[in-house]
Amino acid sequence: MIVYKEIAELNKRFPLLNEEKILLGTDGSVTNILEILFEGDCKVETINQKIVDNTNYREVILKVNNIPLVYAISKTPFKNIEEENLREEIKRDLLSADIPIGKIIRKHNLETRREIKFIGIEKVDERLKTLLKTNYAQLPKRTYNIIYKNKILMEITEVFCIRGKLK
Amino acid sequence: MIVYKEIAELNKRFPLLNEEKILLGTDGSVTNILEILFEGDCKVETINQKIVDNTNYREVILKVNNIPLVYAISKTPFKNIEEENLREEIKRDLLSADIPIGKIIRKHNLETRREIKFIGIEKVDERLKTLLKTNYAQLPKRTYNIIYKNKILMEITEVFCIRGKLK
Repeated sequence: MIVYKEIAELNKRFPLLNEEKILLGTDGSVTNILEILFEGDCKVETINQKIVDNTNYREVILKVNNIPLVYAISKTPFKNIEEENLREEIKRDLLSADIPIGKIIRKHNLETRREIKFIGIEKVDERLKTLLKTNYAQLPKRTYNIIYKNKILMEITEVFCIRGKLK
Repeated sequence: MIVYKEIAELNKRFPLLNEEKILLGTDGSVTNILEILFEGDCKVETINQKIVDNTNYREVILKVNNIPLVYAISKTPFKNIEEENLREEIKRDLLSADIPIGKIIRKHNLETRREIKFIGIEKVDERLKTLLKTNYAQLPKRTYNIIYKNKILMEITEVFCIRGKLK
C-alpha cells in the first residue's frame, strides 16, 4: 500500500482535515500526536476486555483533557509476546488496561515498526457516537500492526474523532 | 523532555501550525508526513556531503512535487553502522545521497525508535531562504536521533518550511 495515495483517494470521497490525514498515515505514535494537538496527557479508558483464541482483545477510548478522541480495538496474541522473551514488566504493561501502546513502547525503549493494513471510513453507530461524544455519521479509520522482532505484537484499529474538537 | 509541553511552550512565543507541531514532535517518519500533506513522492536533493571524524555529514533539502519543504543536516557515525552488522545494502543506502532515511527504514523493515533532543526556532539566513524558497525569517526546527539496536544510527536536524505552502 502506498499510504499517501490511499489517503489522497479517500480524501476525494470523504474530505479529510490535514490532522486526520496525518493520523491515518503516520508510522509514529498516535498518542504522541494527540498530546501535541490537544496539549495534555493522553489517557486510556477501557470499554471492554476479553480473551478469545489466546488473544487479548481490548476496546478503548483515548482521551486528552477528558475529551474522547479515538476509539480503538487492539488484538494482542499471547503467543508472540511469549516467544519474544519480553521482560515481565513489558508483558504486564502490554496486557494491562490503562497505558497507551505508544507510551509502553517509549517507556521501555522498544524498537518497533508499524505497518498500515487498511485506511477507510467507519459508519458511526449510536453507541460509538455516545462514546466519542460526536454527531458525525462517518469518521476516518485505519488498521495497522505494531511489529517487534518481525512478529506482530499488536493489531490495532482506530477511529479518529478529532473533527470539531481541534483548536 | 516531555514533547507536547515543549511544543506548547514554543507555540506561546512563536505560533505554530498544527502540521508544524506534529512534524516537530512526531516519532514517526517525516518523509511519510510530507508525502501525505503534499500528495507526492518525497525526494532528496543533496546540497553538501563530507566526511569528518569518521562521521558522514549530509546537508539536504526534502522536496515534494518540486516544492522545498525541509532543510536537514544528518550525521551518520561510521562506527555504529559497522558495529551493527547491517547488511551491505543497508549501509550503502544509509551513506548514499538520495534516499530519505524514512524510506530506507521502511524499505529494509528496520525496527527503530526516535529520540527528540531539541525543539526550537531557526533564524533563516539568505542562503537558507533561497534553498527553501521562502521569505520567513524564522522557522521551526528540531534535532533527534534515530536509534537502532540501542545505538545512534543518525542524528538529524530539520528546519520545517511548510507555512505558506500547505493546501
